[in-house]
Amino acid sequence: MSLSVTLTAVPGVPDIQNGDDLAAVLGDCLEQAGLGLQDGDILCIAQKVFSKAEDCIIPLASVTPSAEAIKYGEELNKDPRKVEIVLRESTRVVRAFRRPDQNTGTMICEHRLGFISANAAVDESNFGEEDAAMVLPRDPDASCERLRAALAARFGAQIGVVMTDTFGRPWRLGQINVAIGLSKVPATIQEQGNLDAWGRPLQVTEPALADEISAASGLVVRKNGKTPAVLLRGLDWQPADSRGADILRKKQEDMFR
Amino acid sequence: MSLSVTLTAVPGVPDIQNGDDLAAVLGDCLEQAGLGLQDGDILCIAQKVFSKAEDCIIPLASVTPSAEAIKYGEELNKDPRKVEIVLRESTRVVRAFRRPDQNTGTMICEHRLGFISANAAVDESNFGEEDAAMVLPRDPDASCERLRAALAARFGAQIGVVMTDTFGRPWRLGQINVAIGLSKVPATIQEQGNLDAWGRPLQVTEPALADEISAASGLVVRKNGKTPAVLLRGLDWQPADSRGADILRKKQEDMFR
Repeated sequence: MSLSVTLTAVPGVPDIQNGDDLAAVLGDCLEQAGLGLQDGDILCIAQKVFSKAEDCIIPLASVTPSAEAIKYGEELNKDPRKVEIVLRESTRVVRAFRRPDQNTGTMICEHRLGFISANAAVDESNFGEEDAAMVLPRDPDASCERLRAALAARFGAQIGVVMTDTFGRPWRLGQINVAIGLSKVPATIQEQGNLDAWGRPLQVTEPALADEISAASGLVVRKNGKTPAVLLRGLDWQPADSRGADILRKKQEDMFR
Repeated sequence: MSLSVTLTAVPGVPDIQNGDDLAAVLGDCLEQAGLGLQDGDILCIAQKVFSKAEDCIIPLASVTPSAEAIKYGEELNKDPRKVEIVLRESTRVVRAFRRPDQNTGTMICEHRLGFISANAAVDESNFGEEDAAMVLPRDPDASCERLRAALAARFGAQIGVVMTDTFGRPWRLGQINVAIGLSKVPATIQEQGNLDAWGRPLQVTEPALADEISAASGLVVRKNGKTPAVLLRGLDWQPADSRGADILRKKQEDMFR
């Protein structure tokens, strides 16, 4: 068990452009900062830099809204082209509404990757382009795996990579980072069957490790600070063949669909 | 902005008993570990130790279940005395059901403090007593404030305290720690109105700082390790007159009630 864990914002990460080699860019930043990578390190990277590197920015001018998008756009006072992008990223609209005090309404969607989030995680701000929207990478697990393999080879270290996005939650205000892609980092730790400190079985304890890591990364990442990469060092963990989808509750277990 | 934050499990915390002086116990542990407390430190403490110190353990033999508790008990295959304790802690049952594959069903409740969680955060395990249930402290904010004031005085440091509990979430598997009581630590950071790195306004960015801290604490606390206290050092934050209830979404803003 870890007694001390350090989270460090990787300094000097430049604005990422389409086609950039993320592993090369981040590896250079880690090296120049004297951090490097060691066995057991976990890199926690914001989705945004993957989406920028992987050409996931869609100019609104290229989008023709469907009839459904136009209908939601009117109901929610949203640009129907943005709604169209949200719908294309979604398998289902879970909730959509606009309160009288809202200028623009909210859509809660099930993303094609299975995550439930506002606007299917489509980002309309903070990526440096007007009149465009940014969507999630096509395969976040594959993106994490490529980055992990390249950095592991460069630094000769067994590491893990987590891709994060910033989600709101029902019932609780504000946003926290959650994991949407994984390489080697387990989604959860199965403590069922273990005994607690008093020798009684732990019945339903399954810490959401990847989401704990993601939320922690928020402590050293602020959106206006251009620090999309966080190095987590000192955690005691075991590599697993994990996927972002491992974090999703099965449909039949979910009371809030 | 913080570039590096360290989370350390406070070593040597003994099993807490009813009536223990938590500030004295934790202060001694911090001193003996050579950690002490410095300006800006945040202590993240599991609800369980407050509940134990504050006599929040209810023997089931003392509980007479109501007709409603008996009804839920039959539907969910739960001890009606445990259900009765859950109902007494709750203002409302949000969802209750038992799937065919479940031995015991699940109740999602609105706690009298406003939090929505499984079984109104009533703990049936892992506190060292059989045939009893543990409820949340009566006033988590007041408990945090007493602890903070005593430790701040002892170490001559401006600190913050967060009380955490372990909650499940809709849609995502596993549990993470969330904040249920606060002293000085802001529930969220209001970044609305700030500009992002490209000079565009940040529209809805409100990082849930207290929940980020709580989730991060899970990385060094494991239930079977008797490490209920985590020291967070190095975070850049500003004290606030905060309350646990600040984290709660207003009813009219919530689409999942």
